[in-house]
Order: sequence, then structure tokens, then C-alpha cells
Amino acid sequence: MSNPINRLVVVGVGLIGGSLAKAARLNGLANEVIGVAHRESTRVQALSDGVVDRAVAAIDDVISELGEGDLVMLALPPMTLPEHLANLAAKLSADVTLTDASSIKGYVVDEVSKAWGELPSNFVPGHPIAGSEQRGVQAVNPALYENHRVILTPTTATAENHLKRVEALWIGVGASVDQMDISHHDHVLAATSHLPHVLAYALVDTLFSLEQKREIFRYAAGGFRDFTRIAESDPAMWRDIVLTNREEVLEQLNCFDEHLQQLKSAIQTDDAEAVLQILQRAQEARQMFSEQMAKRDQQTD
Amino acid sequence: MSNPINRLVVVGVGLIGGSLAKAARLNGLANEVIGVAHRESTRVQALSDGVVDRAVAAIDDVISELGEGDLVMLALPPMTLPEHLANLAAKLSADVTLTDASSIKGYVVDEVSKAWGELPSNFVPGHPIAGSEQRGVQAVNPALYENHRVILTPTTATAENHLKRVEALWIGVGASVDQMDISHHDHVLAATSHLPHVLAYALVDTLFSLEQKREIFRYAAGGFRDFTRIAESDPAMWRDIVLTNREEVLEQLNCFDEHLQQLKSAIQTDDAEAVLQILQRAQEARQMFSEQMAKRDQQTD
Repeated sequence: MSNPINRLVVVGVGLIGGSLAKAARLNGLANEVIGVAHRESTRVQALSDGVVDRAVAAIDDVISELGEGDLVMLALPPMTLPEHLANLAAKLSADVTLTDASSIKGYVVDEVSKAWGELPSNFVPGHPIAGSEQRGVQAVNPALYENHRVILTPTTATAENHLKRVEALWIGVGASVDQMDISHHDHVLAATSHLPHVLAYALVDTLFSLEQKREIFRYAAGGFRDFTRIAESDPAMWRDIVLTNREEVLEQLNCFDEHLQQLKSAIQTDDAEAVLQILQRAQEARQMFSEQMAKRDQQTD
Repeated sequence: MSNPINRLVVVGVGLIGGSLAKAARLNGLANEVIGVAHRESTRVQALSDGVVDRAVAAIDDVISELGEGDLVMLALPPMTLPEHLANLAAKLSADVTLTDASSIKGYVVDEVSKAWGELPSNFVPGHPIAGSEQRGVQAVNPALYENHRVILTPTTATAENHLKRVEALWIGVGASVDQMDISHHDHVLAATSHLPHVLAYALVDTLFSLEQKREIFRYAAGGFRDFTRIAESDPAMWRDIVLTNREEVLEQLNCFDEHLQQLKSAIQTDDAEAVLQILQRAQEARQMFSEQMAKRDQQTD
């Protein structure tokens, strides 16, 4: 059986792209894995770490070679995509499968549509629910996607063969693949991922603004460490995410605000019963979530 | 050399009290470790797990035996303390060292003062900066305090010999001990611990209120897991903490609100520069914190 992918071209070989590239190589999912990285030092490290078979400075260095059976993955911060998309729209063969790994899908699909003048059949929007506060080629981890979910949000134009190719790639690196509506994805992710990041950044910003900041960090316990770890994520990427998914993020922020105000007013009025009710409700929900996660981990073992 | 403590009586043998009791036993810090637990099943487990040498249902079962060289640790949720304090004020010898492990100190000191009619010289308010979302005697971990900080907030009446005895106990189980002003402690802890807990509970409560809650938990990634873990903490205990440190918690909540509104308004107005500035400031602060933690872990290894 031949590989479902001939050439896998990963644009951006940081945590997300590089981990996929290396996992694809280790699992023999493509005949050749090509990494695109602007910086020479990144290309050198990607090659020496076995992340890719070949490293080039720009997609233009390989774009004319690409055709049926090849796949281009855009693993870049959302707001850097448009300039790449204009170039790809002009030069990429319609036979090449094109996918991405951004945390927002509506914005990316709109930008693809603008660049092509219509939605191309070879574009498969995707989002692996994995990542960490680490970044760069030095953070590459080929096991990153094992037992993680990937959401694909095919457009009305996405062709079946391209969808299957992207699906096979993610399954090949150990992930499970779900399909979802584009706007639904952006709504759900605003709640589970974008909102927590905004809160973590705002909390650390708050604490750092206090006069006693040195002491505050000195007496921060384990809970605080866990709670604020995501505030170490790449600021430029998260700026892009919250701004390109602005409406949904603001809606979730407003919803959070309402709940926080309820709890705050219960504290203000010394309403022990109301405070307990909210904390208990949240604690039970979080415990249910833990149990589901534990079950899922068992199933996938 | 004899043990600095003769009888160590731990009231409440859950995560905090039980872990201290077991660590004291394993390190030979007391001639006898006595646990006080209302429930018979807890006493049985505490004995069979080697958490204590002896288990009693109420402090009254041992209180008349206690004298110079003995130490009573109150490891109970803050709002359950007053009833115990009234009893201790009436019956505990002034030679017995008395300490606690609550996350708030102003409230506890006030309650002690009320119960005794003045601040007794044998009371040493304390707070170990350790813990987790787990609870109960089954969560006991004798290594819980290793490399953790304990804050003691002696009152104007606290006598040196009692302070030294409590300090020696914490150092004996692997902690490092700092002293701090009572109100300063409550201010700092409101920021580093109470505020993050309130936010985590409010976030989980928000997500659980959404129509898509099943999906939301389904697509929650690692960041979300870390971020909300503390919302599994004991609701009754956290109700007590936020209500007994109400003024400080509300002040920190207001401060957080201001910072969140700044970020929200930058998102609303699509001000990419302002969003980036806030995220970057937070990310750098969090990274500095990580580096300090890493250094501290190295020093204590």
C-alpha cells in the first residue's frame, strides 16, 4: 500500500506544524516531509532533529513541484495567513490538498474565499485540539496529537478526496477526527479555549500590577501555577485568535461577566447559601468533566 | 535529644491535617500523634493508614491530658473554628501550643480573641501554602509540605516558645517558614489564591450554563484542564474562605475586573497593539514567575 500522501509540506515548523511533520515522518505517512521556515536556524534545527526530510525558506521553492497526492499544511498564526493565501491562490495546483491548524475557522475560511475569489474544493479547514504554552521547533513533540481530538470544518466546496486525505493524516499521527460546522466550532472554542486564555492573561496582568508583586509571586501555590500556565502562550498568536474570533470571544466574556457578578454579589451580601450553591454547582461540573476525561483516557489506552 | 513536641493533636485529619500528622510521625517529630475526627470511618482509616498513633472522636477525650510540650493543630474549614475555639478557651491549658492552618488569618485571630476575651500567648496563627483539589483522609500525603512555604502570623501576644515549637514542626516536615503581618497575609493570599479560585469556579459555572455544555467539555483541551482544576476544591471550605476574607477578596475582584475590562475594550475596538501589549506584559510576568519557581526547585533539591 502506498502512502496516502506523496509530499507533505508543512508551512511553519513550530510546536503545531513541527510536531505534525515529525509524527508523519516517524509513522511513514508521506513519501517526503518538507518544512517551510523563514529562519535559517529553524531549518537547520528541523533537519538535525529529524522533524522534516527537507527544509526550504519559502513555499515558492517547492510550489511548482506539487500536484495530486500532495498536501500543504499551514501551521501559522492566524493573522499571518492572508499574505500566504494570496500567493497560494495564484500558484498552488487545485490538485494539492490544502489545510490549516488555526484555532479559529470562520476567519480563515473567509480569507481563503477572498484570496481565491470563491471557496476552492481542495481546502479543508482544520483545528487540532492540542498545544501548550511552549513554542518553536525546540518544542516539537511527535506524540503531541496522540489521543487528542482534531476538528475538521469542511466548507460547502470541500471535496471528499481532500477531506479524506487530511483525515487520514491526523488519524495516522494518533488523533481522532470529528467534523463540525464552521461557526459552531468558533462558538465552542471561544468558550473552552479562548475565554480561559483571556482570563489567565488578565489575572497575571492584574497580579503583576499590584505593589506587592514580588511577594505575590513568592507565595503563589500550585493552584496558581496551573491556573496561569496558559498565560505563557505566545502573545502574538493569541492576539490574532481573540481578534479574529472577536464576536464569539466577546459573547463568552459577557457571559462570564454575568456569572462572576452573581458570585461577587453573593460574596458582597455575605449570602453563604448562594455562594455555596455556585461553588458546588461548579465543583460538581468540574468533577463530572474529570471523570469523563479519565474514562476517555482509559478507552484510548 | 528529646522531641520538641510531646503530644501532637491534630483536629481534622483530612488532606491538610492528616498529611501533617503522618509526616510528623514518619519524621519522629512528636512522642505521640493523636488525630481528632468526628466520623468513625475516618478514625479507622487514619489508624490503619498510619496517619496517627491514636484517634479520638473529640478533643474533649484528650484535652485534660495536655500540658507543656504538647501542640494542638486545628486543621478545619474556617467557619467551623468558632465552636471549637469556645471549647478550647474554656478547657485548654495555657501551656499547650495552639496553631491552625487556615487560608485566612484575620478572621481566625479575631475569633480566637473573642473566645478567650483577649489574645492568648499560646496561639500561633499559621498557613501552609500547600494543598490541592483533593480532600479527606484518603488524600493524605506525608510529602505534601516538602519544599513548600508556611506563613506564620504571630499576634502581639504570641510567646516565643510557642512560635518556635510551631516553626520546628513545619521545618521538620520539610517546609520553609516565613513570618508575616496578619492583614498583609490576607491581602497577598486574596490575590494569589482566593481570586484564582473565585475565577475558576465562575468559569466552570459559566461553561456549564451554556446550551452546548456537553460539547464544551468534549472539546476542552489541556489548558482548560489545568485552568479549572482548582474548581474541584471543597466548596464549603472555599465558601468559608471567601466570606471570611470578604473585603480583600472583593478588592482583588475589583482590581481584576478593571484589568479584564481594559483587555475586553481593546478587543472590542479591534486595537491589536493594545491587545498585544497586555498579553505580552502578562506573558513576560508569567515567564519570570516560571523561572523563579525553577530556580527555587533547584535550590531546594
